[in-house]
Amino acid sequence: MSRIRLAIDASGGDYAPDEITAGAILGARQYPIELTLVGQSEQIEACLSRHAVDGLAIDIVDAPETIELDEDPVLAVRKKKDASIVVCCELVHEDRAEAVISMGHAGAGLAAALFTLGRLPGVDRPGLIVPYLGFRDTYLIDAGANTEVLPQNMLQFAIMGSLYVERVIGITNPLIGLLSNGSAPNTGNAIGQQVYALLQVSGLNFIGNVEGFALPQSAANVIVTDGFTGDIALKLGEGLVTELLKQAEETAPNNESVAALVDRLQEQHIYARSGAAPVLGINGLIFIGHSRSKAPAVAGAIGNAIRAVEGGLLNALRDGLKAA
Amino acid sequence: MSRIRLAIDASGGDYAPDEITAGAILGARQYPIELTLVGQSEQIEACLSRHAVDGLAIDIVDAPETIELDEDPVLAVRKKKDASIVVCCELVHEDRAEAVISMGHAGAGLAAALFTLGRLPGVDRPGLIVPYLGFRDTYLIDAGANTEVLPQNMLQFAIMGSLYVERVIGITNPLIGLLSNGSAPNTGNAIGQQVYALLQVSGLNFIGNVEGFALPQSAANVIVTDGFTGDIALKLGEGLVTELLKQAEETAPNNESVAALVDRLQEQHIYARSGAAPVLGINGLIFIGHSRSKAPAVAGAIGNAIRAVEGGLLNALRDGLKAA
Repeated sequence: MSRIRLAIDASGGDYAPDEITAGAILGARQYPIELTLVGQSEQIEACLSRHAVDGLAIDIVDAPETIELDEDPVLAVRKKKDASIVVCCELVHEDRAEAVISMGHAGAGLAAALFTLGRLPGVDRPGLIVPYLGFRDTYLIDAGANTEVLPQNMLQFAIMGSLYVERVIGITNPLIGLLSNGSAPNTGNAIGQQVYALLQVSGLNFIGNVEGFALPQSAANVIVTDGFTGDIALKLGEGLVTELLKQAEETAPNNESVAALVDRLQEQHIYARSGAAPVLGINGLIFIGHSRSKAPAVAGAIGNAIRAVEGGLLNALRDGLKAA
Repeated sequence: MSRIRLAIDASGGDYAPDEITAGAILGARQYPIELTLVGQSEQIEACLSRHAVDGLAIDIVDAPETIELDEDPVLAVRKKKDASIVVCCELVHEDRAEAVISMGHAGAGLAAALFTLGRLPGVDRPGLIVPYLGFRDTYLIDAGANTEVLPQNMLQFAIMGSLYVERVIGITNPLIGLLSNGSAPNTGNAIGQQVYALLQVSGLNFIGNVEGFALPQSAANVIVTDGFTGDIALKLGEGLVTELLKQAEETAPNNESVAALVDRLQEQHIYARSGAAPVLGINGLIFIGHSRSKAPAVAGAIGNAIRAVEGGLLNALRDGLKAA
């Protein structure tokens, strides 16, 4: 069996290229894989030279351009053929890699994936699925890729999310909840009520409407929403954890027990978005992580990508969508 | 000047009637007011008999019926004329009280207010404004009264919210933010983009779109959203604070510093929704508090109601809406 090959966006993220390179090396030591680091090659070489990399299958593809946060991602992706995220997607498109991992700009990642790899058959709107802030076995889809959706799109988020957490995360027969403003079947906005009806006959393990409490309480494994609400839920949660832990430190300064507690909760709930989240519905595997990801998160994302390749996620999604 | 008269729903809330009665007494000791406790009169009398109430202007109006959580609030309010929340609203309607305070079922409170008092001129959709989980000077409207809204409704939420925090909370020239999935002007869903355009020319101190982070970070004083998103943002935040503090206690059991910290953060962020939040846009003043409110929260709500009456909130809302 040939080794799995992954393309890593070495220029994406707040700690690129140092932490991305270090994370790639961690991953290459842990798994029998081939990695291609994509970005400014001189910088990547300098990073690699500071580590012991003998025997690791890591090569470099030069991609000198970068996409800035204030650029329109769609325009930028079309114009900058040598941007690292575009080159990463090209490597998958040309079958020179089996998945992309990027800690860079999520909008640019999505645009590059759509532009280069396209969508799975029948998918209008790929969705971003994220582990919800490290709360146990709780995934949110769509976490921000699509501001406006149709009921059919949200049904597909549920189907794809269910397959992902089953195949890649290993949760058997995952519970699917629809995020709503009440738990009764007749709650929800107009689109939510249509999605509810679709989910009831979907064959998924649908537990009904779930309220905002459900995300931190892990009341379902896959919590389905539109990307507008999902983006707000994700950023609100992240801001709230951050603010609460900041207040904890300010309330009890110089207290070792509290400092240790804060570190632990921060590790679990803020940096746990590490690893990386796949965009589901793209005709290829792409994982996008938190821009603040450091080396262990990159290694975690490599683990996720490997499980997705080995679990046959893309074919499972194709089949699952066809059957729906 | 005659004293302000308030109607208190003594049967509403998880700790009714004991804590509601105790809170009313606290309020009556603190402020020169007249209070009417509305509910099952024998129970209320028994509660009152356990306190020193000499010299306090507290009377009782019997209202033997209660509305259960699983009842349809609109149907229940029409059927149960002797429910405490309905009688409270009647007292305001008949000018026998200037405001209602209830810690009971929010849906029933809204339904009773709409049915008995009606709406302010020009208002299609009253909105619930809540202090966001005790984060400094941050109010969310609509926190759950309206699942579906039109742009004009959300503009009115902003106008009414701005007047409320200025007149009652005392924040001068409050910052108004529109909850969105990005901070740029062109983010947001279709309705949000229309609301953005209305807010820009509203004369309000509109700071633009704000993301989920804005709620815990207090980036605006009034954060405007629809009641679907607002309900999710509120319950998500409450669930997250609760869960995080539970994990803090579990991570460091029997640690006094951590226990004290948890108590303090719980007090600030969970019970701080106490006081009570007004439904803005009703042709009368009604404050609805958290069902878990205890006596100090009831006293806080009395303070809010007094400031609303003294600040001329209802007339300010009438004028502000007319000018828009």
